[in-house]
Amino acid sequence: MKNLFNDNFAKRLAYMQGSAIRDLLKHAGKPGFISLGGGYPDPASFPSALFDKLYFEVKKKYGASIYQYSKTEGFDPLLNELTLFLKRKNRAIAAQPDNILITVGSQQALTILGMMFIDEGDYIAVEAPTYLGALQAFNPFNPQYLPISTDENGIIPEQLERILKNKIKIKFIYSVPTFQNPSGRTIPLIRRKLIADILIKYNVLLIEDDPYSELRYEGDPLPSLYSLAPENVIHLFTFSKTFAPDFRMGGLVAAKLIKEKAVLVKQGLDLCSSTFNQAMLFEYLSGGHLEPHIKEIISLYKPRRDLMMSLIKQYFPSYFKQSIPKGGMFIWVYDDKKKCKKSIKNVLHETLRQNVSFVPGEPFFAGVTNIPFSMRLNFTNQSEDNIEKGIKIIGEILSR
Amino acid sequence: MKNLFNDNFAKRLAYMQGSAIRDLLKHAGKPGFISLGGGYPDPASFPSALFDKLYFEVKKKYGASIYQYSKTEGFDPLLNELTLFLKRKNRAIAAQPDNILITVGSQQALTILGMMFIDEGDYIAVEAPTYLGALQAFNPFNPQYLPISTDENGIIPEQLERILKNKIKIKFIYSVPTFQNPSGRTIPLIRRKLIADILIKYNVLLIEDDPYSELRYEGDPLPSLYSLAPENVIHLFTFSKTFAPDFRMGGLVAAKLIKEKAVLVKQGLDLCSSTFNQAMLFEYLSGGHLEPHIKEIISLYKPRRDLMMSLIKQYFPSYFKQSIPKGGMFIWVYDDKKKCKKSIKNVLHETLRQNVSFVPGEPFFAGVTNIPFSMRLNFTNQSEDNIEKGIKIIGEILSR
Repeated sequence: MKNLFNDNFAKRLAYMQGSAIRDLLKHAGKPGFISLGGGYPDPASFPSALFDKLYFEVKKKYGASIYQYSKTEGFDPLLNELTLFLKRKNRAIAAQPDNILITVGSQQALTILGMMFIDEGDYIAVEAPTYLGALQAFNPFNPQYLPISTDENGIIPEQLERILKNKIKIKFIYSVPTFQNPSGRTIPLIRRKLIADILIKYNVLLIEDDPYSELRYEGDPLPSLYSLAPENVIHLFTFSKTFAPDFRMGGLVAAKLIKEKAVLVKQGLDLCSSTFNQAMLFEYLSGGHLEPHIKEIISLYKPRRDLMMSLIKQYFPSYFKQSIPKGGMFIWVYDDKKKCKKSIKNVLHETLRQNVSFVPGEPFFAGVTNIPFSMRLNFTNQSEDNIEKGIKIIGEILSR
Repeated sequence: MKNLFNDNFAKRLAYMQGSAIRDLLKHAGKPGFISLGGGYPDPASFPSALFDKLYFEVKKKYGASIYQYSKTEGFDPLLNELTLFLKRKNRAIAAQPDNILITVGSQQALTILGMMFIDEGDYIAVEAPTYLGALQAFNPFNPQYLPISTDENGIIPEQLERILKNKIKIKFIYSVPTFQNPSGRTIPLIRRKLIADILIKYNVLLIEDDPYSELRYEGDPLPSLYSLAPENVIHLFTFSKTFAPDFRMGGLVAAKLIKEKAVLVKQGLDLCSSTFNQAMLFEYLSGGHLEPHIKEIISLYKPRRDLMMSLIKQYFPSYFKQSIPKGGMFIWVYDDKKKCKKSIKNVLHETLRQNVSFVPGEPFFAGVTNIPFSMRLNFTNQSEDNIEKGIKIIGEILSR
């Protein structure tokens, strides 16, 4: 077949190339393969029997009418119930139902916000490193990325202020303040307050992406940035790490005007989300199933985190540093002294040959030229045995 | 709350304003209201008990693992099964699984293709009138619309060729050839062949949107444009008019290169579609449930179409013309002699006061200055009694 219509593609397609790393990892699905590269929950954490119960509750309540098209904003009982979910201490958000839009995971919320705010060449500020999926959502609109320096406590407020003082118009800041992907880091309360003050002082908008804060393994919950500066923050949530990814349930919380524009954008994207899945989520939340489910997930993931942290210490060359994630799904390993003389891509090639994967740090940096030797390791979707095997193999390759 | 961040919005938001008509119709949901305005199937056509059966087949086969994230392209057993669905006489498409991408209804496919092909100011050619939802999907990318003249047999091939002769670069043509929304019209076989020849002669791409061809009330199935010019056509399908809208199942069929780019775009939009819903659809198709379901839907909708057509003849002023839809969901009523001196918006205001809605023709025309007095009437989601009441009320208002 001829390659017709190559010249018809829009320019934006050039900013949307698949990464070489993704292509490497694509061939990593064979049996016996130990993936520390993905960001998947463990299917053992999906309450399959509970889902059957919720299914019949939904059918009993709504019958066949539930399969109809529905309004773009979301299912009213769920929007109401979410105001309670958002009040939990790990978000501490006071929102009304009409501040909320249901989206397909939080990924769709990122696309909607990219579409709403980014004109070609606009500046947006992102953490260095930042979530790769957000870059994929924003890239089609071709922004210029301003990296914000971070340390083991996430965004450094002085560094953020330095960028804002430059008087370049920044459309928004994008941040994952809690158990960040990829670094596992959390911005502590004192910094959250400083950042909120900076947002207000410079009248700048921040998109707060929070997929992980329910999965806290130690320490006390922290209030969201939204709760500290509600007029300056758009807050994203998802149920892909608790309820289950396949329901594709996420959403955004924002000032009413911003939410209304977001509804308009979602309408063009896919008209509406599944009402059945929204009703299932409503039954899950209103039936009190979230809290015990979170406890179960934590009891599954926390020992894996503890194990992976100690194995990295044991098997990796001692000059490597690792983040200490108090929750979430990832450990970040990095060589900030530049002692490692290997190329990260060669290391990945070698581990793949031994059926182990990780994600090199490179694609998580936007607008950064001097990227440290670094990797993201996921501890949620492998048994403790596999974590031990995998970290040992990576450690041996790094130590050679 | 202050209206912060109004100046942060991207320029494209200006092309995405909600229509005044949508706002009018929004308040039309009260009990007793007769909506002839929407494009909804009748929930009586949703096989609710069958869905329960399919649900348990899926659970038995896949267990909890079905709730995991999945690959963007779609669920392999479904992609395989769809090659058989596409072969049915109403599409006559020979496709391989890797020509297919699963999308959230066909609406998401329209967004993906808009994102892939349209740079600001690019020309795309659309039927006059055309599907409003496609315009909503394309508008964010700010194309210039070239309207293609149509008659009771849809696109007039000579008119299409006249546009293509102008040597303006046209990124794609968008068409709904079968039981079109809003006109209900179908392009006959002889014109399909002429259009396919024109596509090949001028080396131009066409997006063929086909949500309705399963719902044929009379006449023989016609092959798709894709089947006549597979290298020049991207074909869209959806299960929102058969299986049920809430599963949000649709997709596109295209040359492999185009499909691969579309996968990249979908990844940024929402990562993946629900595997559970894809597995439900697989069971529905492979279990042989589509054919009998189509028969049931037709037995529900055909009498409503027949009734609405005869009532329009009876109650509307005689100078109004109506389309003769051989399938689908809509009748198009228009005054091509310009004998009606009323404003369509005033007519809508009056019918709404009497609890009846329709959609005025205006928003279905893109790039057209001289829009005829016209309306789209939906016959699938009201009882025969309500259709009679509704058409009588509209007819009386038009006759005054």
